[in-house]
Amino acid sequence: MKAVVYKGPYEVAVEEVDDPKIQDPTDVIVRITSTAICGSDLHMYEGRTDAEPGITFGHENMGIVEEVGSGVTTVKKSDRVVMPFNVACGFCDNCRAGKTGFCLTVNEPGTAGGAYGYVGMGPYPGGQAEMLRVPFADYNCVQLPKGEEHEQDFAMLADIFPTGYHATELAGVQVGETVAVYGAGPVGLMAAYSAQLKGASRVFVVDNVEHRLDLVKDLGAEPINFDNGDAAQQIHDAVQAYGVDRGIDAVGYQATEPSGEEQPAVVLNQLVDTVRHTGGLGIVGLYVPSDPGAPDEHSAKGELLFRIGRFFEKGQSMATGQADVKRYAHKLRDMIIAGRAKPGFVVSQELPLEDAPGAYEKFDNREPGYSKVLLQPGR
Amino acid sequence: MKAVVYKGPYEVAVEEVDDPKIQDPTDVIVRITSTAICGSDLHMYEGRTDAEPGITFGHENMGIVEEVGSGVTTVKKSDRVVMPFNVACGFCDNCRAGKTGFCLTVNEPGTAGGAYGYVGMGPYPGGQAEMLRVPFADYNCVQLPKGEEHEQDFAMLADIFPTGYHATELAGVQVGETVAVYGAGPVGLMAAYSAQLKGASRVFVVDNVEHRLDLVKDLGAEPINFDNGDAAQQIHDAVQAYGVDRGIDAVGYQATEPSGEEQPAVVLNQLVDTVRHTGGLGIVGLYVPSDPGAPDEHSAKGELLFRIGRFFEKGQSMATGQADVKRYAHKLRDMIIAGRAKPGFVVSQELPLEDAPGAYEKFDNREPGYSKVLLQPGR
Amino acid sequence: MKAVVYKGPYEVAVEEVDDPKIQDPTDVIVRITSTAICGSDLHMYEGRTDAEPGITFGHENMGIVEEVGSGVTTVKKSDRVVMPFNVACGFCDNCRAGKTGFCLTVNEPGTAGGAYGYVGMGPYPGGQAEMLRVPFADYNCVQLPKGEEHEQDFAMLADIFPTGYHATELAGVQVGETVAVYGAGPVGLMAAYSAQLKGASRVFVVDNVEHRLDLVKDLGAEPINFDNGDAAQQIHDAVQAYGVDRGIDAVGYQATEPSGEEQPAVVLNQLVDTVRHTGGLGIVGLYVPSDPGAPDEHSAKGELLFRIGRFFEKGQSMATGQADVKRYAHKLRDMIIAGRAKPGFVVSQELPLEDAPGAYEKFDNREPGYSKVLLQPGR
Amino acid sequence: MKAVVYKGPYEVAVEEVDDPKIQDPTDVIVRITSTAICGSDLHMYEGRTDAEPGITFGHENMGIVEEVGSGVTTVKKSDRVVMPFNVACGFCDNCRAGKTGFCLTVNEPGTAGGAYGYVGMGPYPGGQAEMLRVPFADYNCVQLPKGEEHEQDFAMLADIFPTGYHATELAGVQVGETVAVYGAGPVGLMAAYSAQLKGASRVFVVDNVEHRLDLVKDLGAEPINFDNGDAAQQIHDAVQAYGVDRGIDAVGYQATEPSGEEQPAVVLNQLVDTVRHTGGLGIVGLYVPSDPGAPDEHSAKGELLFRIGRFFEKGQSMATGQADVKRYAHKLRDMIIAGRAKPGFVVSQELPLEDAPGAYEKFDNREPGYSKVLLQPGR
Repeated sequence: MKAVVYKGPYEVAVEEVDDPKIQDPTDVIVRITSTAICGSDLHMYEGRTDAEPGITFGHENMGIVEEVGSGVTTVKKSDRVVMPFNVACGFCDNCRAGKTGFCLTVNEPGTAGGAYGYVGMGPYPGGQAEMLRVPFADYNCVQLPKGEEHEQDFAMLADIFPTGYHATELAGVQVGETVAVYGAGPVGLMAAYSAQLKGASRVFVVDNVEHRLDLVKDLGAEPINFDNGDAAQQIHDAVQAYGVDRGIDAVGYQATEPSGEEQPAVVLNQLVDTVRHTGGLGIVGLYVPSDPGAPDEHSAKGELLFRIGRFFEKGQSMATGQADVKRYAHKLRDMIIAGRAKPGFVVSQELPLEDAPGAYEKFDNREPGYSKVLLQPGR
Repeated sequence: MKAVVYKGPYEVAVEEVDDPKIQDPTDVIVRITSTAICGSDLHMYEGRTDAEPGITFGHENMGIVEEVGSGVTTVKKSDRVVMPFNVACGFCDNCRAGKTGFCLTVNEPGTAGGAYGYVGMGPYPGGQAEMLRVPFADYNCVQLPKGEEHEQDFAMLADIFPTGYHATELAGVQVGETVAVYGAGPVGLMAAYSAQLKGASRVFVVDNVEHRLDLVKDLGAEPINFDNGDAAQQIHDAVQAYGVDRGIDAVGYQATEPSGEEQPAVVLNQLVDTVRHTGGLGIVGLYVPSDPGAPDEHSAKGELLFRIGRFFEKGQSMATGQADVKRYAHKLRDMIIAGRAKPGFVVSQELPLEDAPGAYEKFDNREPGYSKVLLQPGR
Repeated sequence: MKAVVYKGPYEVAVEEVDDPKIQDPTDVIVRITSTAICGSDLHMYEGRTDAEPGITFGHENMGIVEEVGSGVTTVKKSDRVVMPFNVACGFCDNCRAGKTGFCLTVNEPGTAGGAYGYVGMGPYPGGQAEMLRVPFADYNCVQLPKGEEHEQDFAMLADIFPTGYHATELAGVQVGETVAVYGAGPVGLMAAYSAQLKGASRVFVVDNVEHRLDLVKDLGAEPINFDNGDAAQQIHDAVQAYGVDRGIDAVGYQATEPSGEEQPAVVLNQLVDTVRHTGGLGIVGLYVPSDPGAPDEHSAKGELLFRIGRFFEKGQSMATGQADVKRYAHKLRDMIIAGRAKPGFVVSQELPLEDAPGAYEKFDNREPGYSKVLLQPGR
Repeated sequence: MKAVVYKGPYEVAVEEVDDPKIQDPTDVIVRITSTAICGSDLHMYEGRTDAEPGITFGHENMGIVEEVGSGVTTVKKSDRVVMPFNVACGFCDNCRAGKTGFCLTVNEPGTAGGAYGYVGMGPYPGGQAEMLRVPFADYNCVQLPKGEEHEQDFAMLADIFPTGYHATELAGVQVGETVAVYGAGPVGLMAAYSAQLKGASRVFVVDNVEHRLDLVKDLGAEPINFDNGDAAQQIHDAVQAYGVDRGIDAVGYQATEPSGEEQPAVVLNQLVDTVRHTGGLGIVGLYVPSDPGAPDEHSAKGELLFRIGRFFEKGQSMATGQADVKRYAHKLRDMIIAGRAKPGFVVSQELPLEDAPGAYEKFDNREPGYSKVLLQPGR
């Protein structure tokens, strides 16, 4: 079959690879209909990870079940399904607690969590391909209504819609509360959108890219351009109170100052200022324990100068980690089916698999209009 | 009346001061029977804060109601009461949410939280004195059974028992879980004790002072001496798992390496190692936004090198802040009355008020046996 | 001043009564601008309670502060405020737990909860009058932006908006869930509206009055007419699943069969059928321990034939009780200010106080268009 | 192999039956070391259910894994395991929500929940036998330390310890609260014991059998004999307050009056009286939608006269249903391993499998000393 294969820094190719096979009785094989390119794929694409050439990318996958292992109970051939990006077993301590991003079964001992097509996340080829093997299929498939309706919306269930929603859970967003989201990329937009679905009264989104801030306005949220002055101060001025109730980091360690200089802790520390006493911070922007391209030796080890003194004085809390997609995907799917959520609005392109190399290049260059690309192998 | 007055670094005196008076209809005046010296009093005593000479110390107070304002409804003359150290109104947003340590009414606009006898915590003289004015008395008094029973136990309700309990709430301790507490001082012991009351399966307490570690063993918890090797590793060896479920910081920014050198972030970063993926950290050891005696310029601003990369990778959460004593004091009182909790075991001395200067000196010198001093003015 | 006074069954009059006065230092006096007639006022109006002639009605009150007691801290003369219908102290065990509908201070020993202008709810005259005394004013006033904006919306904060919201809390409504509400009166509509604000995927509302069901459709919820067949079955057919996730009773003990016959347990038992295994029931429709007008001797004592066998087999839960308005009113107010909620859509009339007798009569006769009447004394 | 087979009312026999076999790749076969007789087995034994002769009893099973299907990942041959009585899949909506007693996969469409050896609970033979087939073995086995230690304690993890614990979860027991348990049988004792583990301040247990009440006293809980007067009143007298915070029904529909007469709703209604305003009721005693032996036509359909009027007035909540054993078993196991819980104290006999017929007869006759029988096939 054809698949998007990593060839080395800034290079992917669509190549013939072996078809996936049922390896365990609990596997299914899915024929991919839509598979998205994720911002986190770019970390590998740019060569800033340990990913070796030869890996097939793709962790945001949906499609039609083609083959079913003998130990699978509820998934049937020709079912339409979307797969949470985290591979998970469903029965370990973390999965049972709903922390499916930290499955203790699917990766090496001592680590937690698996994913398709991602370095360090276990032996699971990605789904930017014609076919995908899905382990523990009863758990890792989310059933969808048959047909072609909502294809873009459902594709967002594999990662960014639940990841944005997860951010609001980590931050503890409640009905009537005010929320600030740092970062107006796809995940930041999904976080703002999720906060609105949960009944937030006001949602601010901070960025300095105008076309992203336009999308914020379209959502009915309030854009804050940090080129226009301190973001925390702008938000304080708007809410006329001790700060917002909840803050979300959808940027991570590659945060930059208005000058453009990388300053890995700047968003975290801005959040401490932005959020009121006793408020909550939800961190889904990535922080890593090892970053070879970091600006200094401490950042290289994932150690950042965090304003813990002020954080403690304000009695804040902070929760982190990659999204437990499975925990949210079913109910968010129901929102899409009921017409109450349309996360597909962030999709900017639907392209055949063959167009992956160009799409990666344009997405990596942040070309205007390349916000969220769906590859559609059957197209 | 007589009161313990701060005279300057390393000096307190018992002096005559004005009797407190009913200032607002919602006040009461309490005649103090027991008032404890707290580790946090030493910050002022040592001159490491902005406290000006003349302030009366004492935020762990209990006694008998002597006079009642005309707007007080449920507190009566001669009631026996203990006062949570945080002064709180009961009706602001934070108080209604149970975050009584962050009351928005009792201190300057822009700040949150008040306390008796503490610099920066509002205009409330301390209770290391014969009498104490208690504002918003219906809210700030916790009723006790009349008589003299459980005096030591009830005195612990003003601060350290609820503070230790708060640590277990911040960390999210659940029945059957394993817990590591850093620091075997009074608050650390109360945290370990609270974890046991909540049904933790195993509780580890880390310190390097032998007589404190003996108390840990007496509690039925497991002492870890960090002079014997990396504490996190010792705990990992003991639990034979990914780490403990919950971690508690009862040390704060004056943490030291085994060498004795101050390293403000060492406990925080050890906790990240000690706790399993998706586990929770509860921070009650103090971190401050400004520390003139800090070892470096960043610590002086409360900015510490925190291992956020690993923290995020493990999907951990962290909650902080001074205890919301009022939230816990009533149920913990009921545990004492029912004979199910005896937090008074940490009390090492009961002394007349006049002995305060010597007690401060010995406590500050960490003289063996001076772990928790109760001053008893009426004695 | 003028007030709406109960004269006996089916009779109220607007009469001169004594002006309210500051009785306790913690009181304020409010000049009423809007005060609504509630369905529960009709119980007294119809003579189906122990209410004695002479009582002033009115528990849904808002207005402008006119006079302030010496023990009040945050409420100022000329503040615009709305008063939760439950009178509460803010400091008893129930208030501190957010159960402000069950305050242990404001009513007779052994009872719990107080209200303005309601039989058995303590010595608090109602606000269908020019002025109202508000006890524990720092707690019982909810501050509003000055001016006249959102008058109808804010008036709904005294009772029915929080009561509808409370129903969704009791039932445990979560994002993406399906909800069935029995009863399309003002409270049922507010429950459906609240479920939507919280992100329910589908909301069904059951009634058999066409103009009420039209309002359901206007909300974007799904009307179910129980004259068209078993409501539970209609809902099962619509969701094609084990039933809805959550069910709400906004009818209470005066429930009727399609025939029109009173059958006090019919809604409760329908909910057991309508809701899936492990789902939650939120009961805000009133059930009473004593009903002289009941159809049989058991109902007269508030004992109903409840399908506990099926309820248990399905592992359902049920939570009940009058709303703890204070717990919700602040955040719901913020939703109104932010333009995210407009509960005033249920208001059908704004009338001068003098029109109260006619309004009561028409409302009691269920005259079309008399869904929610606001009396406006200053008008 | 040998198994305990139901022959008809009041008759079981130990007979040869077919050995269980791996039917699905996700199955394991367990050689039983301990299997308990449960009070709920007696419903079938007495012929008060639809159970047909030929069924093998036994849903409280533990043993050693003998054979492992090809789709099983973490369970290995010779592992020592205990099986929660509910058969569950781990991946359906209810299992993922922790409601494993209501699995939507393992029984007929339209029903929820499965169990070993129980009528109506799916095609799963019981474990009062030498061997047991365990479906979805990665989910349905709880791993135990190898060896023979804690055999009695671990055997209680299959049902009654988690069921007692579940009762405290349904009731919402928190640290410092007071609890009343109706019924001092094995489940009631486990509920009282669990309440203590969770830090309840006082626990009352109501029964009228002296030797059961002695066990209550041994636990450090407070026995209430309802032959000595109204149980609710006795408890009110003891707590001197509005009632206990939480109430537990460990009796169910076969409740009796002091006279000995069956009155199915008596415990439910007593709980409404016993528990304070806003308190919680946890119902694990069984209520059934169909009871052929009921005292009247309504009870026969599971419709009982419930004091809903008073329940509502007090703003109470009630949660019900069979225990979700899997949710609790792991942490309770850890409590046993850590020496913090010893639920095996309720075991009264350890007998070879062959003694089952006599044990059933004596247990059914409530012979003194036959409180909890463990059958041990390998013995």
